[in-house]
Amino acid sequence: MREQVFWGWGEPGAGPELPALAEAFLRDELGLPGGVVETPVALEAVRLRAPDLPEAARAGLEQAVGPGHVLDDAETRVLRCRGKSYLDLLAQRAGDCEGAPDAAVRPAGPDEVAAVLRVCAEHNVAVVPFGGGTSVVGGLEAPREGFAGIVSLDLGRMDAVESVDERSLTAVLGPGIRLPEAERALGVRGLRLAHVPQSFEWATVGGCVATRSAGQSSSGHGRIDENVVALRCATPAGELATLGAPASAAGPALRELVIGSEGALGVITRVALRVRPVAEEQRHEGWFAHSFADGCDALRRLEQEGLAPDVARLSDETETRVALALAGPGGPARRAGQAATRALGYGEGCLLVLGWEGSGRAIGARRRPAAALLRKSGLLYAGQGPGEAWERARFAGPHLRDDLLDRGALVETLETATSWTGLEALRDAVAAALEGALGRAVVGCHVSHVYPTGASLYFTVLAARDRSDPVAQWERAKRAAGDAIAARGATITHHHALGRDHMPWLEAEHGRLGAELLRALKERCDPAGVMNPGVLAERC
Amino acid sequence: MREQVFWGWGEPGAGPELPALAEAFLRDELGLPGGVVETPVALEAVRLRAPDLPEAARAGLEQAVGPGHVLDDAETRVLRCRGKSYLDLLAQRAGDCEGAPDAAVRPAGPDEVAAVLRVCAEHNVAVVPFGGGTSVVGGLEAPREGFAGIVSLDLGRMDAVESVDERSLTAVLGPGIRLPEAERALGVRGLRLAHVPQSFEWATVGGCVATRSAGQSSSGHGRIDENVVALRCATPAGELATLGAPASAAGPALRELVIGSEGALGVITRVALRVRPVAEEQRHEGWFAHSFADGCDALRRLEQEGLAPDVARLSDETETRVALALAGPGGPARRAGQAATRALGYGEGCLLVLGWEGSGRAIGARRRPAAALLRKSGLLYAGQGPGEAWERARFAGPHLRDDLLDRGALVETLETATSWTGLEALRDAVAAALEGALGRAVVGCHVSHVYPTGASLYFTVLAARDRSDPVAQWERAKRAAGDAIAARGATITHHHALGRDHMPWLEAEHGRLGAELLRALKERCDPAGVMNPGVLAERC
Repeated sequence: MREQVFWGWGEPGAGPELPALAEAFLRDELGLPGGVVETPVALEAVRLRAPDLPEAARAGLEQAVGPGHVLDDAETRVLRCRGKSYLDLLAQRAGDCEGAPDAAVRPAGPDEVAAVLRVCAEHNVAVVPFGGGTSVVGGLEAPREGFAGIVSLDLGRMDAVESVDERSLTAVLGPGIRLPEAERALGVRGLRLAHVPQSFEWATVGGCVATRSAGQSSSGHGRIDENVVALRCATPAGELATLGAPASAAGPALRELVIGSEGALGVITRVALRVRPVAEEQRHEGWFAHSFADGCDALRRLEQEGLAPDVARLSDETETRVALALAGPGGPARRAGQAATRALGYGEGCLLVLGWEGSGRAIGARRRPAAALLRKSGLLYAGQGPGEAWERARFAGPHLRDDLLDRGALVETLETATSWTGLEALRDAVAAALEGALGRAVVGCHVSHVYPTGASLYFTVLAARDRSDPVAQWERAKRAAGDAIAARGATITHHHALGRDHMPWLEAEHGRLGAELLRALKERCDPAGVMNPGVLAERC
Repeated sequence: MREQVFWGWGEPGAGPELPALAEAFLRDELGLPGGVVETPVALEAVRLRAPDLPEAARAGLEQAVGPGHVLDDAETRVLRCRGKSYLDLLAQRAGDCEGAPDAAVRPAGPDEVAAVLRVCAEHNVAVVPFGGGTSVVGGLEAPREGFAGIVSLDLGRMDAVESVDERSLTAVLGPGIRLPEAERALGVRGLRLAHVPQSFEWATVGGCVATRSAGQSSSGHGRIDENVVALRCATPAGELATLGAPASAAGPALRELVIGSEGALGVITRVALRVRPVAEEQRHEGWFAHSFADGCDALRRLEQEGLAPDVARLSDETETRVALALAGPGGPARRAGQAATRALGYGEGCLLVLGWEGSGRAIGARRRPAAALLRKSGLLYAGQGPGEAWERARFAGPHLRDDLLDRGALVETLETATSWTGLEALRDAVAAALEGALGRAVVGCHVSHVYPTGASLYFTVLAARDRSDPVAQWERAKRAAGDAIAARGATITHHHALGRDHMPWLEAEHGRLGAELLRALKERCDPAGVMNPGVLAERC
């Protein structure tokens, strides 16, 4: 079983590191003094209370899953204490794990999950379903108040490819299978999921479904919600199982209630997903737009005319500038950028990365009219270099974040989506809110998911960490950004789920009655209120 | 305002008629004696009780919408008594309208809808939202027992195109606008919905959303649920309004609860739908497959390889034979069929109609690889004649049904969907169930909506009507077919919604907990239980 370091991303010692140029960038742009490297506390120094599940609860759990699968060693508990947001990592690096679950419970299948939920409901023990552990929205940190204990329900043993229907192109997967392992297992049959969030290395299938994950190639292959054919969800009130029909008119789509429910209604125990043939080839390439507005308009036209590639990612001026600066003078993106700058004055412009997948012939047939439209829209082709550079670095962000944390940075992301008409004003408003709250900061943004009617915006925020109160510093910025998003009727999250971090905007998102309906569903599925408390609905 | 005849389809005197050949076909295939033509009763002969809404309720409704918009004349009430299923029409033709609503109430906007719901909840008056009136699943016939009265909440006055966002390609529509009027209003701007169910002539936008309508060109343009960007729904407990973001990860998609809710939770008062540019051209064409299995396999490959046309419709052997027989010796489909028969022995085969929309160039580019794949799959091109014949007759079915009812036929349809792997066995099982229940019958079937993982099946059933108990005759057949569908894990309806007719299969579709969740939603939105009672959930 692979596990991450408890204080950051990746396996111990693995992952890309900040380029040498970063030090100067952090000093010049954010005023961070160089040379200081902070390190996280060692496991032995983490503050952790002794596990104290009620004895009857612990006995019941051991009976449900077998005594070898109720774990309460320090490392297991510390690793399941919270997710991987900026504030999560600050707390983990400082060794503040007093809210850690009392135990991790590892069921082998749907029946054992149901048994665990029965025990927890009976003994008022909070249950936090745990897949990849990569939540960046506070999805994993349950409050202790009002509960007799907390267990992390770890789905890692439910990691099989249960069945594959090669004719219907569907596969039934256990929720705990990580995406790389799923792709390897399906790849043997020439198939793949093609779901690639930035958390790909660690994310699980069940976690993606429970959080309505988007994925970097959603423009071509759809979000996870568009790929779920059917699912089974164990709740304290019984199982909800949906049919595998490709579509239905039989009333509301209950599948859509479980997708995005983040463990607050129950635990996803099986997912039937659409699969696709493995792509013979991939092509990633770069284009430059004069401005973010020009780039958005070109992307909109690509999508609305049915010419969108599988990956479409447009960085705004700031993100482009930062990416080129950090790529260094020798990197391919940098060289392409410089050439463009020199030739046509696109230097203050925006980098667009496009990716196509399929046979070489199919890629060519799709790419030709798309390239013609981009040229007609005034964009400049920058070759495959910038695209390949993005492709190589597509999972690097959270690894580099660990290095940035070592160097005293505030580094966080947030994201939203709205209509094409509202997109640029929303970008401006959220960037202004973040800059207003943080003062000296670098706020970059990119569009990464395009739809016929609109697109997503993904913000990356860098600033010098306020050492006196880093939590308040970020919470102020997050609140300003969330309020700016809600004020424009955009969604509070397009990639990352609600978690506990977005609960202040629940009514802005779903309205008063919508929030009540979520509570009504919660009450029916989880009358004891033990399922991931604090997420989706307040306890009854 | 256009209105249908109360006993059938279409405006008085309008619509295509049965071809001359039909008489011989009905005699030879079903044993129906020719020459007898039954006619529906006149409006004056319809049995209708006097309207008896409680006086305070009537006064409240008049206050809510204005006295001129609470109508209780006989024609208005008879027209809103039930939908347009086979059994509905038998009852209407016989003048059995004693269950008709006491009045039709016609609000002008969302606030008036909310006011009507308040009055009805207060006075225990059942509310049946009424759009196009084309339900074929018992969606419109509320029980009187337990209620102080029934009102038909007619959305005909809420028929405006409220706004159009030409950049984001979305339009906000009133629920009561009929599809032809919506297409005309959008067409002025060069836009269209491209949602074309067989009920197109009468169906309303709100009705399509409330019933999760599929549409004949869903293979290209998606079902209605894939085109709803946002909506507003008035419930007795307040309004549920969803955001217009193109996608979100903010928990369960509550929009998906209103889509398909059939008025049991509330009344859809606004719908934001995706729109598209008007198609410059359309091309419909026919192909012949040796067998239904061959045709299914070719359609599956088209869809899975991204080559599916906008319309894809494969008739099985029986439906092909009936269509060719009724087309007559001079018709283009017939000529093509005969040519194929002679040349290659496709005479017992299956007709596949494909339709493409767009610029001539785009159609050509999409059609070429699709045609190559069909040829490689052993299908025979039959020219544009059969496609154009289908296109001309695409809305004829319900008009012809009136003539068939005149001649003493049992004529009904039902539909389902399942995975590609289960498709042919499901077709065989449902056809066998219908034939087993009816004895001498013609059961034709077609695939009309293709998805990467599966497809829909649409059955048309013809038999001689059992004059002693036609209701029991059809109910027996419907029960057998529904049980065969449920036994195979297919959906009880892919096109037509649950209504009251599919309630026996609610738990087969959604499971015990699923049915309870629907009830929990109903209780929260409609505590008095007045919204379209008997649909979706039993009264609390």
